[in-house]
Amino acid sequence: MNETEQTPKIAILGAGLIGVAWAALFQHHGADVCVWDPEPDALAATAGRMNAPMAQLFEVAPDAGPRGTLTLCETLAEAVTGADLIQENAPEAIALKHALYADVEPLMAPDAVLASSTSALTWSDLRPGLKDPARLITAHPFNPPHLVPLVEIYGTDPDRIARAEAIYRAADRVPVRLKKDATGHIANRLASALWREAVFMVQDGIADVEAIDAALVNGPGLRWSVLGAHMAYHLGGGTGGMAGYLAHLGPSQERRWAALGAPSLTQDVQDALVAGVMREAAGREVAELETVRDKALIAALRARKDAPQV
Amino acid sequence: MNETEQTPKIAILGAGLIGVAWAALFQHHGADVCVWDPEPDALAATAGRMNAPMAQLFEVAPDAGPRGTLTLCETLAEAVTGADLIQENAPEAIALKHALYADVEPLMAPDAVLASSTSALTWSDLRPGLKDPARLITAHPFNPPHLVPLVEIYGTDPDRIARAEAIYRAADRVPVRLKKDATGHIANRLASALWREAVFMVQDGIADVEAIDAALVNGPGLRWSVLGAHMAYHLGGGTGGMAGYLAHLGPSQERRWAALGAPSLTQDVQDALVAGVMREAAGREVAELETVRDKALIAALRARKDAPQV
Repeated sequence: MNETEQTPKIAILGAGLIGVAWAALFQHHGADVCVWDPEPDALAATAGRMNAPMAQLFEVAPDAGPRGTLTLCETLAEAVTGADLIQENAPEAIALKHALYADVEPLMAPDAVLASSTSALTWSDLRPGLKDPARLITAHPFNPPHLVPLVEIYGTDPDRIARAEAIYRAADRVPVRLKKDATGHIANRLASALWREAVFMVQDGIADVEAIDAALVNGPGLRWSVLGAHMAYHLGGGTGGMAGYLAHLGPSQERRWAALGAPSLTQDVQDALVAGVMREAAGREVAELETVRDKALIAALRARKDAPQV
Repeated sequence: MNETEQTPKIAILGAGLIGVAWAALFQHHGADVCVWDPEPDALAATAGRMNAPMAQLFEVAPDAGPRGTLTLCETLAEAVTGADLIQENAPEAIALKHALYADVEPLMAPDAVLASSTSALTWSDLRPGLKDPARLITAHPFNPPHLVPLVEIYGTDPDRIARAEAIYRAADRVPVRLKKDATGHIANRLASALWREAVFMVQDGIADVEAIDAALVNGPGLRWSVLGAHMAYHLGGGTGGMAGYLAHLGPSQERRWAALGAPSLTQDVQDALVAGVMREAAGREVAELETVRDKALIAALRARKDAPQV
């Protein structure tokens, strides 16, 4: 934490998978963290459930400096009072979040930021929950949040956005700003577009599920971990860059877009997807696959420190 | 080279960017490589242009064993005669490739494989070039071919496909098989689908070019470098896996597909894309960006050795 002048206080609302990951991330990077959950059992389990992400964070960022404090708060007021950033991780139900915001808003410091981790909802969906919507931003992490650096941000108050971004950056995140409220933010729109074609290729018989995944991981996925899609076409244009690419291959790209598929998740397609991932999993349970994923993510993150992305 | 019983002989036809990368890859991994190009200047420049990829390959795979030989062949016959695999990297023009194949076919060993690196064309486009199309496979690498492991394969002769795959695997590649001939193979279909939405977000004003690239590289791109898109939804379904995901979130995914954009590369959009990548490049020339990309790819590939992908 070296971008803010004093130790920030972060309130984590909701101690599910995402909330616990945020709590570990912020504490590891020196912030003082207060976790609140309406379920006493979830709250009591928080410290234990933070052990695994804390250990992973030590592998990714062993030099993060002294940890912050962790406080498990039995009341919302205790968590929110004095917090610089309130990261909300409630279930994805509009009415529930509106009700929570009605309780949070009177407790917030005047210039504090209420940041929703929402994936499925938008800022516009959530803003009716506040008297002063400028206090609200959406700040969507990508799973698992303590490992994948992206935080996608939308809000209307530039000062609050800038202060939230500084807090996320100090916790080794990469905040990315939307100019306009959009369902799926940026990353899930990209993921959804890619998966549509991946499902189409299964439906159309072009390739098996596991072949498509292997192609992605050993081809464009690897490349997109080091440079973006726009930048890839800039490099694909040679010395002419993006302008050269568009002049020579823009029309063929538009024809390719027109030829992309529009699959339906029929029962047959669903069966093929399930059978495919089961072949790919090769007997490994979801928890084991997550462990492999996390180890690979940690290794990839460590590699970035010596050789940064484009 | 430990999957084949004796040192394979590889003919590389065309000493452009892709051909040179293939030559370096195969030689580094112990194969005997013969390079032919119809342009004497290109042929003469080959050994010098292989220096950079050879040095990179030594960083990625320092333990690959003794290098194979490199022969610069002034005639097609010298390169093709006795070759196990003939990797064709001619310009993407059907008539030109057909004419080349007519010259190659009589020189090939009976069970040799003619593998086209074609990106834009399909096996069906190329097959009329041969009397015996079973000799032909498409074997599309992903740029840069000596670093990105993917090779996408389509053909009709299972024996030849299996022999080609063994040669690619021995050169540390990951061959992936298509079940059906398809424009864009697998990876460029995925890349095209993703870029369509990336361009739409620029056109629609949702986010800037550089924000979209940063979101991809620090979010889904990083994750797709360790697990595939199908597998990601399997893990997103929790203990229910892909079946659970589809049951609970399949309908919302179909709604999201319906809401994805269909952009056009109008002059305004082209201008925004060019301006965006120029901001992102921040004064760095394409060659410098490629150097950064390659260093990051090498670091990512080294990280995979200790922590393999899902």
